[in-house]
Amino acid sequence: MKWVYIEDIANYKDQDVEIRGWVYNKRSSGKIRFILVRDGTGLIQSTMYSAEKDHPLFFKFDELTQESSIILRGTVREEKRASGGFELNIKDLEIVQIAEEYPITPKEHGIPFLMEHRHLWLRSQKQNAVLQIRTELIKAIRDFFDGRGFRLMDTPILTPSACEGTTTLFETEYFDQKAYLSQSGQLYNEATAMAFGKVYCFGPTFRAEKSKTRKHLIEFWMVEPEVAFARLDDTIELAEDLIVFIIGRILEKKKKELEILERDTTPLEKVKAPFPRITYDDAYKLLKEKGSKMEYGDDPGSPEETLISEIFDTPVAITHFPKAIKAFYMQPDKDRPDLVLGVDILASEGYGELVGGGQRIHDLELLEQRIKEFNLPRDAYEWYLDLRKYGSVPHSGFGLGIERTLSWICKIKHIRETIPFPRLLYKIYP
Amino acid sequence: MKWVYIEDIANYKDQDVEIRGWVYNKRSSGKIRFILVRDGTGLIQSTMYSAEKDHPLFFKFDELTQESSIILRGTVREEKRASGGFELNIKDLEIVQIAEEYPITPKEHGIPFLMEHRHLWLRSQKQNAVLQIRTELIKAIRDFFDGRGFRLMDTPILTPSACEGTTTLFETEYFDQKAYLSQSGQLYNEATAMAFGKVYCFGPTFRAEKSKTRKHLIEFWMVEPEVAFARLDDTIELAEDLIVFIIGRILEKKKKELEILERDTTPLEKVKAPFPRITYDDAYKLLKEKGSKMEYGDDPGSPEETLISEIFDTPVAITHFPKAIKAFYMQPDKDRPDLVLGVDILASEGYGELVGGGQRIHDLELLEQRIKEFNLPRDAYEWYLDLRKYGSVPHSGFGLGIERTLSWICKIKHIRETIPFPRLLYKIYP
Repeated sequence: MKWVYIEDIANYKDQDVEIRGWVYNKRSSGKIRFILVRDGTGLIQSTMYSAEKDHPLFFKFDELTQESSIILRGTVREEKRASGGFELNIKDLEIVQIAEEYPITPKEHGIPFLMEHRHLWLRSQKQNAVLQIRTELIKAIRDFFDGRGFRLMDTPILTPSACEGTTTLFETEYFDQKAYLSQSGQLYNEATAMAFGKVYCFGPTFRAEKSKTRKHLIEFWMVEPEVAFARLDDTIELAEDLIVFIIGRILEKKKKELEILERDTTPLEKVKAPFPRITYDDAYKLLKEKGSKMEYGDDPGSPEETLISEIFDTPVAITHFPKAIKAFYMQPDKDRPDLVLGVDILASEGYGELVGGGQRIHDLELLEQRIKEFNLPRDAYEWYLDLRKYGSVPHSGFGLGIERTLSWICKIKHIRETIPFPRLLYKIYP
Repeated sequence: MKWVYIEDIANYKDQDVEIRGWVYNKRSSGKIRFILVRDGTGLIQSTMYSAEKDHPLFFKFDELTQESSIILRGTVREEKRASGGFELNIKDLEIVQIAEEYPITPKEHGIPFLMEHRHLWLRSQKQNAVLQIRTELIKAIRDFFDGRGFRLMDTPILTPSACEGTTTLFETEYFDQKAYLSQSGQLYNEATAMAFGKVYCFGPTFRAEKSKTRKHLIEFWMVEPEVAFARLDDTIELAEDLIVFIIGRILEKKKKELEILERDTTPLEKVKAPFPRITYDDAYKLLKEKGSKMEYGDDPGSPEETLISEIFDTPVAITHFPKAIKAFYMQPDKDRPDLVLGVDILASEGYGELVGGGQRIHDLELLEQRIKEFNLPRDAYEWYLDLRKYGSVPHSGFGLGIERTLSWICKIKHIRETIPFPRLLYKIYP
C-alpha cells in the first residue's frame, strides 16, 4: 500500500493508502472510533467502525495515547464535515510506539514550560502553522531574488572586524586571532555586488544584546540584497516590491495556516506599492503632534515606531536620517550633508522595523574620513576601501529580518515563536 | 534608455540600451576601439568606430583603465564572431570612475596574493564562473527538497552542547553560559522531523580543525534532510536522487560556466542512480587488493577514498561501518551489532566524501546506553531523549557539503575557490 502524506490526500480519493504519523487526539462515539492523526504536513480524521465491541482494532485503539506513533492503512473518503474535506476509513492500525504521558496537553501551559519543551511544542497546531508559513516565506524571498537575476553570495559568519563596535558581538578564538560572529553580510555584499552586479546573502546573524523584548532574538535570519549602480530610490522600490511579493505569496499559499492562527488578513491585503514615504524630519513632526517626547536627532525607538505605524495603515518608509544615528558607510545627502540616504521600512500594525538600508558611500576620500571619525581600525577596512579605488559606483541595499516579518504576517505577540529553536537572553536550551 | 544586464542582451537585438559595468579589457585596431565590458552577469564586446582620430569618444576610451566603472549606451547587434553572439555599438560612454592601477593583471599571481585580494579576485572570469555555479547549485538543492514537500527548518548555530566532543568546536560566551558554533543541525532536525514529517536545514557549519588540506574549510555550508519513518535504504535513495538532480541541473543550466572552467563533463554525465553500494567490509577488501595499509576498523581517510573512487567511475555508497568510528546516535545493524546503519557517498574522480548520514537510534534504552558509553552529559541530551519517549519512529537523514560538491562539479583543485570568502586555518581576511 502506498505511503502518502496528508497534504496530498485529495489525490487519493477512494483509494487505499498508508499514513504514517502520530495521534493528535482520539475519541469514541458508540460503534465508531475517531483518531485525529498528524503527519507533519496536515491533520486527518480517521475512523474505525464496528458493530462488535471486541473488534481487535478497538483494543489497539484503546491503547493509544497522545503522540503515539502509528501506521494506518485504509481508504480515503470524501467527507464534507471533516476539516480538510477527507477522512480515512481505517482497515489496519499498526502501533509503532505507545508514547509516555505527553507533557503538553490541551490545557494551558506557561511560556517557560513550553520553551523548555520547544522540541515538542513544535508539534502543536499553532506552532506548526507559524513555521509552515516561515518555510513559504523564505521560499518566496528566494524566488523573488532568483527571479530577478540576483546571485546568492553567502557571506562569512566568522569575521575579523565589526560593523558597528564590538559591544554586541559574540567573540571566539580563531586559532591565533579573535573572530566575531557576523551581524550583517553587507560589507561583503558590497564586494560581491561589484563582481556580480546584483547579489543577496541570506543567513543567520547574531546580536549579543542584553535586551529582553518581544521583538529581539539573539540569533536571527536576515536577507540582504545589494545592487551596484542602484541609488536610494531604487533600493526603496526593491524593498517595496519584495514585501508586496511575499505578502501576496503567503496570502495565496498559506490560507489554511493563517486561519489556524486566526489572522485577520485585511491589513495584509492593503499592502500595495508604493508605500508612503516620509523623511526623518516629517516623522519627527508627526511624532511631536502625537505628543512624543523624542528629541530631534534621537533614533526612533519601539514606541515611536508604533506611533508612526498607527498613522498609516500600510508599511511606511522613513528616509534621510541624521548622520549621527546611522552607520559610518551611509551616503550623505548632497543638499543636506547632516542627513544620510538611509531608509527604514516599518510594518503596519505596530510591528516596527522590517527593513533597514540605504545608499553606501562610494567616494574613497569621504569613506576614509568617516572611518577616521568613527575611530575604526583602518587596516581591517583596507579591502573595503579597495572597492572605492577600483571602479567605484553608487550602490545600495538593505536587510530584511525574517523573524520580524514573520511576526507581523502571523500577528504573533512574541518573536520567539517564529523560529524553530529561539535563542534569547540567557536562553539556549534546547 | 533602458538599463539592461548582459545576460539578457539577446532580448534587445537592434535596440538601443544602456549597460553599466566595468572595463574587463580594451584594445584598438585602426578606426575601431574595442571595450570588453563585464557587469557581473556576463561579458560583452563593445565597439566604437570613427574615421576621425580625434573623435571625442576616442579620448574617453584612451583614459580607461582595467576595472574602471562606465555606463555605455548603444545598439545591440548580432555578431557571430563575438563570444555570446552579440556586441554593442557604442553611441555614448559615461565614465563613472577611472580605476587606480588594478592589482590583479592577466599575468600569474601567487595564491597568497590572490587570497589577500579575494574581494577583487571574485571579479575574474574563472572565479565568477565557479560562484555562478554555486548559486545554481544551491537553488537546485532547494528546488529538489521544496519540490518533494520538505519543510525548511533552520536549526540554531549557537548550541549548548556538542555532537562529537568539543575539540573541534568554536566556543563563545553566551551571557552567563558557554555556547558552541554548530557542526551539524542533525539533532535539531530529528526534533523537527517528528513535528513536520520531512525537513531540511541549510546553513553554515563550523569546524575548528587544525587541518590544512585542499578539502577543508573552517566555515562551510551544508544541507541536511531528515525524514521520519525513513530507514537506511530510503536515505541512500534520497541522496542519490538529490545528486542526480543537481548534476542534471548544472549540466543543463551552467554549460557556459563549465566551458569557462574547461570542465570535461563526461564523468558528470555518467552520474545515474542507483550508485554502486558496497559495505565497509567490501571496501576494506577492495582497499587491501589495491595495496592499502588501512587496518580493519580504521576510518577510511582521504587516500583510501581516492583509491575507492578510482575503482568506480560514478559516485559510490559505502554502508555498514564499524560502530566505533561513527557517532553515538547511529542505529546498529540487527544482524551485526558491531556495525551501524551509516552511509557515506564518495564523489567520482577522487573528490571524496560528499554525503554522510544514516539511520538514527529510535529506541530509548539503546540511546541512553550509547550516551553513557560516549561519556556525554545526559542533561544536555534530555530533549533529544524525549524524541524517543513520545512517539519514537525509525528515521534517517544525511548531510551534503556544498563546497565539496561544488569542487567536484567544477573539478577544482582547492576548496577555497568554492565560497566567496573562504575561512581557512589562521586565515580570516578579508
